[in-house]
This record gives sequence, C-alpha cells and structure tokens, in this order.
Amino acid sequence: MAAGKILYAQSGGVSAVINATAAGVIETARDKGIPVYAARNGILGALREDLIDTTKEAKANIAALKHTPGGAFGSCRYKLKSLEENRAEYERLIEVFKAHDIRTFLYNGGNDSADTANKVAKIGHTLGYEVNCIGVPKTIDNDLVVTDNCPGFGSVAKYTAIAVRETGLDVASMADTSTKVFIMEVMGRHAGWIAAAAGLAGSKPGDAPHIILFPENVFDPETFLARVKATVEKVGWCSVVVSEGVKGADGKFLAESGARDAFGHAQLGGASPVLAALVREKLGYKYHWALPDYLQRSARHIASKVDVEQAYAVGKKAVEYAAEGLNAVMPVIVRTSEEPYKWKIEAAPLDKIANQEKKMPKAFISKDGFGITAAARRYLAPLIMGEAPPPYGEDGLPVYVTLKNTSVPKKLKKFVPA
Amino acid sequence: MAAGKILYAQSGGVSAVINATAAGVIETARDKGIPVYAARNGILGALREDLIDTTKEAKANIAALKHTPGGAFGSCRYKLKSLEENRAEYERLIEVFKAHDIRTFLYNGGNDSADTANKVAKIGHTLGYEVNCIGVPKTIDNDLVVTDNCPGFGSVAKYTAIAVRETGLDVASMADTSTKVFIMEVMGRHAGWIAAAAGLAGSKPGDAPHIILFPENVFDPETFLARVKATVEKVGWCSVVVSEGVKGADGKFLAESGARDAFGHAQLGGASPVLAALVREKLGYKYHWALPDYLQRSARHIASKVDVEQAYAVGKKAVEYAAEGLNAVMPVIVRTSEEPYKWKIEAAPLDKIANQEKKMPKAFISKDGFGITAAARRYLAPLIMGEAPPPYGEDGLPVYVTLKNTSVPKKLKKFVPA
Repeated sequence: MAAGKILYAQSGGVSAVINATAAGVIETARDKGIPVYAARNGILGALREDLIDTTKEAKANIAALKHTPGGAFGSCRYKLKSLEENRAEYERLIEVFKAHDIRTFLYNGGNDSADTANKVAKIGHTLGYEVNCIGVPKTIDNDLVVTDNCPGFGSVAKYTAIAVRETGLDVASMADTSTKVFIMEVMGRHAGWIAAAAGLAGSKPGDAPHIILFPENVFDPETFLARVKATVEKVGWCSVVVSEGVKGADGKFLAESGARDAFGHAQLGGASPVLAALVREKLGYKYHWALPDYLQRSARHIASKVDVEQAYAVGKKAVEYAAEGLNAVMPVIVRTSEEPYKWKIEAAPLDKIANQEKKMPKAFISKDGFGITAAARRYLAPLIMGEAPPPYGEDGLPVYVTLKNTSVPKKLKKFVPA
Repeated sequence: MAAGKILYAQSGGVSAVINATAAGVIETARDKGIPVYAARNGILGALREDLIDTTKEAKANIAALKHTPGGAFGSCRYKLKSLEENRAEYERLIEVFKAHDIRTFLYNGGNDSADTANKVAKIGHTLGYEVNCIGVPKTIDNDLVVTDNCPGFGSVAKYTAIAVRETGLDVASMADTSTKVFIMEVMGRHAGWIAAAAGLAGSKPGDAPHIILFPENVFDPETFLARVKATVEKVGWCSVVVSEGVKGADGKFLAESGARDAFGHAQLGGASPVLAALVREKLGYKYHWALPDYLQRSARHIASKVDVEQAYAVGKKAVEYAAEGLNAVMPVIVRTSEEPYKWKIEAAPLDKIANQEKKMPKAFISKDGFGITAAARRYLAPLIMGEAPPPYGEDGLPVYVTLKNTSVPKKLKKFVPA
C-alpha cells in the first residue's frame, strides 16, 4: 500500500450494523498507524471535500460504533453517473484524494457503490494518481452477488422473525373475539429475502407466519384470500407477511393499487393496508396491520451477533487488503460450513459484483408460493444466530454514541455535485 | 379465604407482561396449595365453562410465562352487560364457580374488568355463594385510576422510546439526500401515555422525537406543518410521533380523515400516512412513516424489567389478598419514592377503580403542545428501567412457551353468551 490516508464513506440506506463495519475499519487502521478520514454524508462529502478526521475521535467512541445503529458519518442516496456522462465528478474525487493524501478509498454500500469504487480505481490510474479502491459490503436487501450474504441483512432478518413470533402469540390469544388476520409489511422492493426470513419465526405446524407474499411472485387476490380463509378456519387466525415489493398482475406495486391519500395521490409504502382492506371486504374478518419501516433496519437492540461480527470483519479485512495493496476488490463472506455454521472473509473482484443483483433462488419458495423451503431455512438460519445487545443506561435505554465528527479544513475550491 | 379453587381470566388486549401476572398468580397459589383454573379466552371461557386446569402444567412452563408475551390462556374483548340487562350471565358465572368449587375469581384486565369483578362479587353474595373477586391490573393504555401505573404500559413505553431513538439515528444519517420527516404512529386511542413515553428517547437538544401529537390536543395542520418546517430547517430532519387517537377540529380521528382504501372506505389505523401525505403536499419533504401496531405491545424481547416485576407482583398479591379473605379489591402499584424509584403493592377497593379512566395530566404536555414536561419525564422514566430479556435458543429466537392448557371436564349444560 502506498502511504497516505484511508477515506471511508457510507452509502445508501443505513443499517443496524454499518457502524460496526466503520469500527472494524477505524480500529484496524489505528492498529496499523493509518489515519482514516470519513466522508460526511457519503460520497457527497467526498465530492464536497466535506471530510471528517476520525483520528480526533476517542477510542471509546469508535468502539461504541459496534453497537450503534444508523450511519455515524452520514450516508446518502447518490449514484455517480457513468464516466462518459459525468467525468468531472470522478476527476473531482481524485482531486480531493490528492489534496488530502488519500491513497485508499473504502466505499461501504451495495452494488452501486461497488461500481463507483471500481470506476474510481480505474480513473485514478488513468489520471496518474494511485489510489486503491475497495468496496465494503452493506445492504439489508441481501442482494449482492458473490458474497454468501450481506452485513445488515441478518439483523433485519432476526428482527422480522422475532416480530412475527411475538405478534403471533398476541393474535392467537385474541382471535376468538378480536383480530383474526394480522398483516405485517417488510422491506425488500426487489427481492424477498427479508420476507423469507419471517419464515424462521415458526417452529411447528400452526405457528406464524401462515402466509408470506414474496415480490418474486405475482399477487393473486383469489389464491391469497382462499389461503387466508383456510388458515383462519383451521388455526383460528392468520399471520401474513408481505414484502413492500409485491406486485399485482398489472405489474404495479400493491401499495400503489389501493389507498389514495387525502389529496388523491396513490399512497406509498402500504401494501399491508391494501391487503387488510381486501380481507375486510371479501372475508369480513377483523384485522390489524403493521408497517415497521425504519424500525426494522435500525433495531440494533436486537441485532444478530453473527451479523455484527461479519459487519466488523468486512471492515477489518478491507483495511488489511488495502495494506496488502489489493485494489478493486470487496471482502466477501464465504460460508465454509453449514452445520456448524462457519464463515470466512475472502477478497473478490469488484468487476464481478458491481451492478449485479442477487435474486432469491426459486428453490427457496415453497411450491404453493406462500412459504419458505428447507433449503431457505438452512441458508437463513445461521444469519440470525446469537444476540449482541448494546449497553443500556440506568434510564433503561440503549447507550448509542454520537461522534464529534471533527471537520478536516478544506483545501480546494467549492464543487457542486450534479 | 374459603377453601376451593381460584379462577384466573385474562381480559381485553394482551401485553408483553400479562403472562408474568399469570405466573405470579399460579406460582403463589401453588406455594399455598390452592389449585388454579384458568378461563379459556377470558370471561367467555368462564361463561362457556371452558376451563383450563393449570395444575396439569409443568413448573417450568409456568415459570416461562414470566418471559412470554401474549395471553397464554386466551383473552377476549367481551364486556358483560349491566346486572339489569343481563343478569343471566352473572348467574351463569356463579353457577360455573359453584360447579367447580371456585371461591376466588381473579380478573386480569382494565377498568371494564374491574367493574365486572366488582359485580360478580356482589351477585355471588346475593345468591348465597361466597366468592371473592379481585381485579388484577393490566393495560398498556395506563389508564386505570388509583394505581400509579399499569402493568403492560412500561414495556410499550420502553419499546416506543427505543424505536424513536434508533430510527432517529437512521433518519439523521440519511437526511441530506433522503428522508427528512419520519412519522411513527403509536397506540393509545383515548390518552397519550404511550405517545408521551416516546419523549423519553431524547436526552439532548435536537434528539428525536421533535414533535409528539397527543390525543389530548386538537390537531391543527398549520401549527404542525410550521413546526415540521422549523425543525427540518434547524436540525436537518424531523421525527414525529403521533398517537392513533389524534383528532382534528371536526372531532374525527385523523386516521379517518385521510386515506380511502381501494373500496372507498376510510382506512383504519393510519394517522401516520395521513400526516405523511400532508407533509408531502404542503412541504414537499421526503418522508417515511411507520405503524408498529401489535409489535409494540407484544415486544417481550425488550420489556421493561420494572414492568415485568410489577406484573408478577400484582399476580402474587392478588392470591395473597384472596388468601387473606379480601374481596372486591385490586392490588395497585404505589410509588413510595421517586429517586431512587421505589414502589409497593397495596389493596384498593374496586368501587374506586371500576369504569374510571385516568387521563394524562395537562402538566405532562409542554406548553407548545408538542412535547413532554419535566414532570412527565419524572413520572415515566422509572417505568422503563431495566432489561429482562427472554432466553434465546441456539436459533437466535426468543424461547416462548405454549402451554398444554388441559381442559377441565364440563359438568354443566351449554350456555351461549349473549
């Protein structure tokens, strides 16, 4: 590795464990004597030269990142255009790197970020500035290829399975006279990984969830209602998990097909109330619905220990790879054994990961389309194993850290991203 | 206390800790050699003579109730009519008690249940059958009078405060380019106790939540929007907590004023999407909203230790009161010291509790109407103190118990409740 600093940036939707990755990066770099800057609000901070000097941060604060949700340096939703369309932004990044002697760029995100890191590595080379770019995996969507799973997903999976188990006990005890159908909506616009994780909640026949609606399947109201009815008649109640990404035969999101808000707009983010309305209208059952939204991806209090450990490990490895001089790679998770579950981190080329999307295998969805298979269970089960609770204060609340985030003095002219 | 058995019944919406009360009842009764029957699905089970023999249940299963959410014997929403309107049901209860030698009735619920227990005690006396009736407090709504607080509330309060703290970190890190306004809806149709608990999440200026909408206040869109705008401009983002019970100037629930489902019905259970639509339409900010619904009241995994202990204690005391021959009372929680927080259980007459509703004091809501006062904080803070996690299996999920619930053979003719 060339001497110089590491720049670390968080990208896209945050998770309960992305800060554990930041801790892995910073603690490992400190051990090696490499200073780490962080970009404020992700890649935008790099473009704006809005940098944070993590060396000013107390050791205890960095350690506390391991149990703090959200993105400690700020993240953003901003995708750099292609080199052809907006070369200026890539050149600007190199300019900022040069000005601050940044020789390693660690971009912590999903497939888009892997693509960006890959391109930045190349243009640095073209412009005669040597910088190693390493993509660090993070996405609750679990849709990165090559890696066995993605840091962030295991904790959402655990949250979802626990919520289904707990609400199942609630509904079961009230179904005689009250709610018979409970519908919970989970994230995952393109793939049903989180919805599938809900299936881990049940351990014996009759347990919740009884119906999972995957974005991989076209929603058919008739089949759905028939299954709800059959479940209520057999079990006494019915627990439904629906992915926000479920679409009808018309190719539209369920969420768009139903409710209109007070202003007449299609109401966003609500497949569950649409299903609830359908159940009420066609079957007449009492229902409740829930939409935990950000609660599911920020629930550090119930994070998966495996997930926390893997999130830390990819950060640590990213720095080690940088120190070894690796470029345009990502530390990915490899499952080396299923029972007992074992894993290791390996370097994989960004070329193979950028802009790809891992769909859930068909073999993970049961034949009737409403549940998960044994194969899915084998894959998912280890990812939610173990607890890693944050410390709690005497006030009964988790103690999360807010960093000082000391700004690095600017050296360059202002740059306004496109 | 006359010899004979105890009948225990769960009533109304369940909670994360109502089973801890059941454990308190059953374990204490076992110590005293008193057999406990439970009514299946609450008072309906008593009317239907659908009884469960808890003496058939293993000790470990009863102990596991302390960490299992939901209602282990089933609960119901069923209010007995007045004695004048439906004397037959009261007489039926006495008939069932007589047939099974039940000399103590423990009714675990809210104000309605206290009223029922009170009436059953009286009619037993009139009919010449001696039965002691004791109301055992339970309601996440925290609206029982006399008692300082209600078992079930502290755990929802803790869940809510943690969710606000965690989602706040999430939104703060994304606000630069993504969601600026996050709206979370909490339970509490008549009183803002749960909404108020959200206020515990913040410990310093700028922390979430920035706006709490209480059912105690009439919702005014202009003031609300102005406060959202001012918060986003100052803090960069805005966390809003709204009680499902918030009403507009027209006296209608916010939830009813907005979205229509695909069938044209007012959409129930959604004040948060209505506010989100308002924010989008009038301010143009990106938003997300969440509606945790049953997740909040079943979240045993993050229950308050104080709440679990109090829930157990009221069950235990109820049996002790019964053994002492007390009738028509409720074990209530008395706060004996604020700092350090100390409490004890005392017997209070059901006459003083039945059919009353404890509103939140005006002094608990800040002058601007959007936050809690120091007095509210002093009252609420101790109720969420301490953690009492359930045991977790190797699979990473909480181990909750499902009881065998062995039925008691029926001795009477069928009775169909009104």
